[in-house]
Amino acid sequence: MPAFNPLVEKLAPPPVPSVFAWGRAYDGSRGPLIDLSQAVPGYPPHPDMLTLLGEMGGSTAYCGYGPIEGETVLRRAYAEHVSEVYGAEIGSGNIHVTSGCNEAFVSAAMAVAGPGQTVLMTNPFYFNHETTLAMMGVKIRTVSCAAEDGFVPQVEALAAAITPDVRALALVSPNNPTGAIYPADLLRAVFELCRSRDIWLILDETYRDFLPEAGRAPHELFAQDGWEDRLIGLYSFSKSFCIPGHRLGAITAGAKAVEQIAKIMDNLQICAPRAAQAAVARALPMLADWREENRQEIGRRAAALRAALAQVLDWRIDAIGAYFAFVRHPFPSLDSAAVAERLAKQAGIVCIPGMYFGEGQEHYLRFAFANADVPTIALLEERLKNFAAG
Amino acid sequence: MPAFNPLVEKLAPPPVPSVFAWGRAYDGSRGPLIDLSQAVPGYPPHPDMLTLLGEMGGSTAYCGYGPIEGETVLRRAYAEHVSEVYGAEIGSGNIHVTSGCNEAFVSAAMAVAGPGQTVLMTNPFYFNHETTLAMMGVKIRTVSCAAEDGFVPQVEALAAAITPDVRALALVSPNNPTGAIYPADLLRAVFELCRSRDIWLILDETYRDFLPEAGRAPHELFAQDGWEDRLIGLYSFSKSFCIPGHRLGAITAGAKAVEQIAKIMDNLQICAPRAAQAAVARALPMLADWREENRQEIGRRAAALRAALAQVLDWRIDAIGAYFAFVRHPFPSLDSAAVAERLAKQAGIVCIPGMYFGEGQEHYLRFAFANADVPTIALLEERLKNFAAG
Repeated sequence: MPAFNPLVEKLAPPPVPSVFAWGRAYDGSRGPLIDLSQAVPGYPPHPDMLTLLGEMGGSTAYCGYGPIEGETVLRRAYAEHVSEVYGAEIGSGNIHVTSGCNEAFVSAAMAVAGPGQTVLMTNPFYFNHETTLAMMGVKIRTVSCAAEDGFVPQVEALAAAITPDVRALALVSPNNPTGAIYPADLLRAVFELCRSRDIWLILDETYRDFLPEAGRAPHELFAQDGWEDRLIGLYSFSKSFCIPGHRLGAITAGAKAVEQIAKIMDNLQICAPRAAQAAVARALPMLADWREENRQEIGRRAAALRAALAQVLDWRIDAIGAYFAFVRHPFPSLDSAAVAERLAKQAGIVCIPGMYFGEGQEHYLRFAFANADVPTIALLEERLKNFAAG
Repeated sequence: MPAFNPLVEKLAPPPVPSVFAWGRAYDGSRGPLIDLSQAVPGYPPHPDMLTLLGEMGGSTAYCGYGPIEGETVLRRAYAEHVSEVYGAEIGSGNIHVTSGCNEAFVSAAMAVAGPGQTVLMTNPFYFNHETTLAMMGVKIRTVSCAAEDGFVPQVEALAAAITPDVRALALVSPNNPTGAIYPADLLRAVFELCRSRDIWLILDETYRDFLPEAGRAPHELFAQDGWEDRLIGLYSFSKSFCIPGHRLGAITAGAKAVEQIAKIMDNLQICAPRAAQAAVARALPMLADWREENRQEIGRRAAALRAALAQVLDWRIDAIGAYFAFVRHPFPSLDSAAVAERLAKQAGIVCIPGMYFGEGQEHYLRFAFANADVPTIALLEERLKNFAAG
């Protein structure tokens, strides 16, 4: 048998399915399984979303190939949305639709960095960003984020890590896995840093719609002069519309970057699936109130998690934000994979070990608290109190 | 502005949109536009296909994330189908669903070849295969296929091109762009060659369902001992079910290769869109007769193209097969891009210049004849007779 690509062969298998397997081994003795693993909103899509998806799915209009960059209606609707969210002037030529935000990251990263070049990330990081760069042969350098800084990266540390081989800095805010929300001022300073050092800034804002403060721009970067030559913004429709199975994401970038990204997307899959694009173009303005209600609901879930864990000795939330909490477990002699496995099998709580998100995260677990409703989150108190990890 | 990835920047823009632009510049004076460019069946999907797509699209069942490798129902249904087509025993563990066949190629190629390694292809080649490898930093070597061989590669030439840096041979049969159908015996010899030289064989059979002979296996490779350690088969549901906009393809490979491909797919987009997977799983057995009718219809279109071009002096079909014809134009002083542009703008015939498929193809045009019905194809005679390319 001939060899596989060594860059791919040495990747660990995708972590989420193995975490699910732990959950399946739970015997139910402590009550129903609480799934805080993969980020999936615990409520269904809006009925109008489903109606639109059904209607567009069954239409001949979307059976043929579509434009590589995305359906015109969705590029326009999303450009308007982004313009509103950030108080910026974004045109539909700045939008490239992708099949989910992972593909947005692949395309953005490949547009700016090739094999042997370096992309700077934080530690902890979203594991698929790391494995994506690794399989592309792109080198990775990480800058550690400290618990005492709320897992927000420090500009000086980022600056020190930008050596001449670094082509881009990739950040996630609100962060996956920590939940940390990067302040607008920090992002502005990071943007200026990237400008002064002439590197790209890839900013993944998949969880932007769940920020605790309503109606305030997450940052002002898209309103900066020359943002097009520096910034590539990533977004996912999966979480906000509860439709990850339909695979839809978007890139906001300068026209020149969109042109490069279109070459990549054409190779990867010609165009994103079309029916869902047409459906989301309609849903984007239509379901604004519903998304706002969900944002508030996720806020209540964050509060519920804080309240539950405050009652449990030695378990500590070191960061919490729009969707995730980064929780420090109280078993210094066990790594987070061992704790997460036992937590799933013995206590019926499925979450992702911190160590899957980078070296040095053995003491942490990622809780995707947004997946579970308030009464379910309240159950964590009792379950964690009774959990011995033995 | 920081640099883009040089591997991406030096790629030419995707060719299909520029070809469409020529078509839009046609003034209609010779009658309706005849689009023989991008491979899209000229008939609509079956009504039951649309019903299924609508039903699954509107269902909550497919809104969440699904298995990376694909929906169990589709993997099972497709494995059964492949087993039947090839007279082989293919299990659902041998199937990986992708978002279209381009993504199947990216995933398969990346599984076996990394930056700096070499993949062997034919010339002419499907241009997205070439640009995909180029953007990955994979080196490409080509083996020329000659008109006098009906554009079928010769085993000796392939053997001579397999140097130690070659990790895989990538073939397309029925071929894109030439239409050439590689005989089962040739494929068997190629398979043995790959076995003896310890390289992978990636075989893209996107157009398999339109082979002129019904009910005969395209080849026996999937029934060979040890096929799992050698062969990766690619397929697209786009053409056979007329649903390219839903982006659905599949890989048939050994379990170990599927495992590597799953790591890549997880990074690329977690899973293919789910609703269409569920719909096609149902449609695959249900629409077998409809696909057979279409196969026969495409055969009639091939005959119509032969008849039309037989009447036109100096235009010559050098290869024709399941979907495409590779047509030699009679203007030795003009390259195929110039001819195709004028053909579109002046005669309302849109096709793809041969030179987009490799060096030395300046005298050829790719006609995707399957796109047009018989009466439309018959119009080519008059249009080409009156075309002066001046």
